[in-house]
Order: sequence, then structure tokens, then C-alpha cells
Amino acid sequence: MPASLAIALDIGGTKVEAALVDEHGAVLPSSRHRFPTGRGQSAEELAESVRSAIRGVLAMLSGPDAAFDAGLVRGVGIGAAGPINLGAGRVSPLNLPVWRDYPLRELVADTVHPVLPGIPVTLRMDGLCITLAEHWVGAAQGYDNVMGMIVSTGVGGGLVLGGHTVPGPSGNAGHIGHVEIGGHDDPCHCGGLGCLEAVASGPRTVEWANAQGWSGSTGEELAAAVLAGDPIAVRAVERAGRAVGRAIASAASLVDLDVVAIGGGFSHVSPLLFEHARAAVAERVEFGYVTRVLIVPSGLSGDGPLIGAAALIHRAALVA
Amino acid sequence: MPASLAIALDIGGTKVEAALVDEHGAVLPSSRHRFPTGRGQSAEELAESVRSAIRGVLAMLSGPDAAFDAGLVRGVGIGAAGPINLGAGRVSPLNLPVWRDYPLRELVADTVHPVLPGIPVTLRMDGLCITLAEHWVGAAQGYDNVMGMIVSTGVGGGLVLGGHTVPGPSGNAGHIGHVEIGGHDDPCHCGGLGCLEAVASGPRTVEWANAQGWSGSTGEELAAAVLAGDPIAVRAVERAGRAVGRAIASAASLVDLDVVAIGGGFSHVSPLLFEHARAAVAERVEFGYVTRVLIVPSGLSGDGPLIGAAALIHRAALVA
Repeated sequence: MPASLAIALDIGGTKVEAALVDEHGAVLPSSRHRFPTGRGQSAEELAESVRSAIRGVLAMLSGPDAAFDAGLVRGVGIGAAGPINLGAGRVSPLNLPVWRDYPLRELVADTVHPVLPGIPVTLRMDGLCITLAEHWVGAAQGYDNVMGMIVSTGVGGGLVLGGHTVPGPSGNAGHIGHVEIGGHDDPCHCGGLGCLEAVASGPRTVEWANAQGWSGSTGEELAAAVLAGDPIAVRAVERAGRAVGRAIASAASLVDLDVVAIGGGFSHVSPLLFEHARAAVAERVEFGYVTRVLIVPSGLSGDGPLIGAAALIHRAALVA
Repeated sequence: MPASLAIALDIGGTKVEAALVDEHGAVLPSSRHRFPTGRGQSAEELAESVRSAIRGVLAMLSGPDAAFDAGLVRGVGIGAAGPINLGAGRVSPLNLPVWRDYPLRELVADTVHPVLPGIPVTLRMDGLCITLAEHWVGAAQGYDNVMGMIVSTGVGGGLVLGGHTVPGPSGNAGHIGHVEIGGHDDPCHCGGLGCLEAVASGPRTVEWANAQGWSGSTGEELAAAVLAGDPIAVRAVERAGRAVGRAIASAASLVDLDVVAIGGGFSHVSPLLFEHARAAVAERVEFGYVTRVLIVPSGLSGDGPLIGAAALIHRAALVA
């Protein structure tokens, strides 16, 4: 039996998921409750999806179906798609446009506190939670200066520096996807030019390959084409991997990192993505503190976001 | 009379300077001792310049010329050109190639401790010291998330996040000059391409203007040409200012900043440099936490590096 529990909530553009996570970072399998989110829902429908996921977990802690002692629960950790407003506990997820400056922390507290009065509710950006999870049970264990990255439809991330999280005053630190890449000027959703996300996300990489004459339409097809030796697909992955590496080199120059752990759907497109990222960082020959940075695949299962949200509670001493 | 004193040391590519700095961040004018450094000196000659500067200060604290009570001295703060090796107390200043992995902290301790046994000796990179000085008595007072920048022959800087310094595990965090700029691919000394330093330093901006047909050769001449309305000079400053702004936008996306304070000789080329930097940051319209960043001129006199080195001692509680 677990000695202590956190209620973990992961809130993204397509789903909300809640679960109980124990003090070792294990998600209790029977405790998962998932509901859809998305652009089709109103602000109140999104809120009801969050409440439903939480109520599913709370039903396991009290009442006729209780399976765990409610007294073991130390708090609620929420990882949410950004941008967020940390001080106010509000979120404005890019992919959920009906939620702008939405009081998410209050919604969660109002749902949990009638059952578990007064327990802490901690909100951070999803990229930060994933980084905490890599640091706790993933590929960044044993390192104190870590950048977690997700390379997928978008490119996000988070920072642990000196062994503590760096949320930034607004809660939005870690947006590695909006660090610019030399030599690229692709327009980015943020308003910038040449941001990593605009160059190397899955969809942007597929678009680039299409413009060179490749005819596929998904990251999975691109992965297959690389395996088959399609020269355009191979070059597309080289272009994305070098961009990832150049963003890492900029970030490591600025904050001095030990390790970068990369996950997300498009990170699996090919091991070549990692090789080109490493090669780009290695070009910074005069800065040994940059070239020493390890670039590794995520050590997390698909549970990373929930584990990271739980780390906000179980690893609270590291959470700034 | 001061209530407490720090011995401050600033070690750069052209000079070493030592002075006493009081608990309010004031450099005691009579205490300055400056000796040249440079590529013409051997490793031992550089060491002797450092010893001479320190001995000048120590002579004011004991012996026949003592002007201050040695008991007031709380420690020695050293700001040095990087890269550095924080754990080992060693430095490899790019502009002093005979010093590679040179044991600077030991040199200073061995010179100071015979007179002031056991006092702390703290070494950090110069860009970090300048940032601490801006935070203490300069343009970043009252803010807890600060990037200091120097735009000069090179481009350097440092970070204070959450009210504490971010040295990085190796001591080299803050190298904003080696964050890449979208759309630029200029080769950089570090081995990278499109780094801010390769695009927007004083010499690189002059080179660019020369390539467009401008005939001057210094930043001062470029400043005069901007004032006179020379169209190439005006465009050269726009190019440099936008690059500075784009690097700031990347940095603010990654670490979430309140204010960036910019000093260094070339930062004075024209107020247009700041206007273009602000305009480039303002283009990141979807990220309010980025566009809110204040970009201001340094609030420090030429004493900034000494004040920042002294802050390592007087503000030790903020120094990670």
C-alpha cells in the first residue's frame, strides 16, 4: 500500500486526466479518470470535464467505493497547457481558446475541498511538470540542471536549475519552442520569426518535406519514409534535428545545463533526430560547458504528465 | 565611515582593477588600484598584475598606510571574464589565451589570506557580477527576474531569477551573446552560427555597415553617423537593435524575465538601438509574459563590475 498519495491532474488540448500517484511516482492504474476536452467545448463544458475527472478520483477516497484512505492524500498537483498566470492561478491554453485567464486553480480547489478540506492545490505549466517527472523517475535522474522538452504538434518544455524548478514570475518559463534558430525565419504562432516550434514541430517538418516534393502527411509516414531511405524525409529529419540542437545550444549557453530529455510524439520519428541535435551542439567547440550537455530520449512512459503533476506535491521541496 | 567592506576585483582582457566597496555599493575612491592585462603578458605577468592590484588595497588595511580597519572586511569578490570553472575556481578568459584553466581563486586567496586569514573569496563570471550590480544599485532595483547585458566588443550577460543568481553548474550561465538570432547565419567565435555576438557586437555591426558601403571604422564613428542621419548607419543600428531584441525575446520565452538592463560601450551608439530591440520583442504578440519585459539602459557607472564583484560578498544571501 502507498504511504502517501497525490491527486494528479493533466489538462491539455484534447483531454483532461486525473489519477492518484504514490510517493514513488507510480500511477495507481485503477485510479485513472479521463475526459475529453477540445475546441468543440464551451468554457463550462471544459470545467465539467475537469470536475468529472476529479470526482472519479475522489470517489475512490470516500463513500461506498473508497479504496484508499483519504488521509494519505497530501495535495493536488495540476499540470496545464500554457500560457498560465501563476500568481492568479489562471490559464489560457493556446488550444482551448474559450478559456482565457480561466481560474483553473479555483475550479479544482472548489471541487476538491468539500471532500478534502484545506489540502494544497498547486498549479504549474505542463512542460515544467514533465521536466520534474524526468528529474524524479525519468532520464534526468541524478542531474540538477535539466531541460525537459516535448517535440510534437508544438514544442514545449521546462527547466530545473540548481535542483529547483524555474517557473518564472508568471509561471511561463520553459518555452524552448520560442527560442529562435539562426538561419531560419519561418513565421511562428507567437508572432516571432524563426522560433524552434515554427521550424521543427511535427507539422512544420511535414510541411517542409511536402514543399520539397514528399507526398506524405503525418509524422508516422515521415518516420516510415526515413526508414525506407527516402532522401527528402531524411533531410527533413536532419533539418528538424539540427534546429532542436541549435535551440539547445542557445539554452545551454544561457542557463548552463547538464542534460536535456526529449519526449513527445515527433521525437520518435527517427534516432537521426537525436544524432543531428547532438551534432549541432557539438559545433560550439569553444564552449565546453555547452558541448558537454547530454541529449537523451525521455525516460517516461505516457504517464509523464501525471507523474510530473504529482511531483508538485510529493517533491514540493524542489518546487519554486 | 563604512560599516563593512568588501575587496572587489574585476579581471578582464585589458585590465585588472581592485578596490574597497562599502555595504551600500559605493566604491571608495581612494582605494582603486588598476594594472594592465592583455595578450602581451605571460601567465605569470598576469598573475603579478592581479597580486599588485590586491596588494594596493591590502596596504590600505594594515601597516603604516592603513586608512581602514581590516576588521571591517567581510570577503573578497572576484568578477572574471569567462568561461570559468566554478567548482575548481579556475578561469579561461577568451581574451587572455595564456590563462587556460588558470587557478584564479587560489591566486587571490594566497595573496589575501596572509593579511586577512580565512576571509571568504568568491569567484563568478563578470556578466553575473554586472547583473547583481544592476539588481542592487542599478536599473533593475526592485525586480527579481533580471538579465544584465553588455553590448560591446563582445556580448555578455548574467541572470538573476527568483531573486537569486543563476551561475549554472559550471559558472557560465548568462552567455546571452551565444543565443542564436533567427534569419542570421554569421559565423561566431564559439563555433556556432547566427549567435547574437556574431551579429550585433560593435565590431560586427561596423563590419556590416562597411560591407554596405559605409566608410567609418569604430562604434563612435557609427554613433556620429547615425546622428548625422547617414542611412547605412541608421540601418546598421536597426539591424543590431533588432538582433538584441530577438535574443531577449528568446531568453524571456525560456526563463521569464521582468527587466533587461543593457550596458557596454556599443549600447550607447544610439537610443535607436533600444527602440528597435523593444519593437522586436513587441512582435511576440501572443505571449504577454514576453512582451511585458522592460528593456532599459544600464543604471551603473563604469564602476559596475567592481560593485557587482562586491555584491558577491555584501549580498551573499542572493548568490547561488
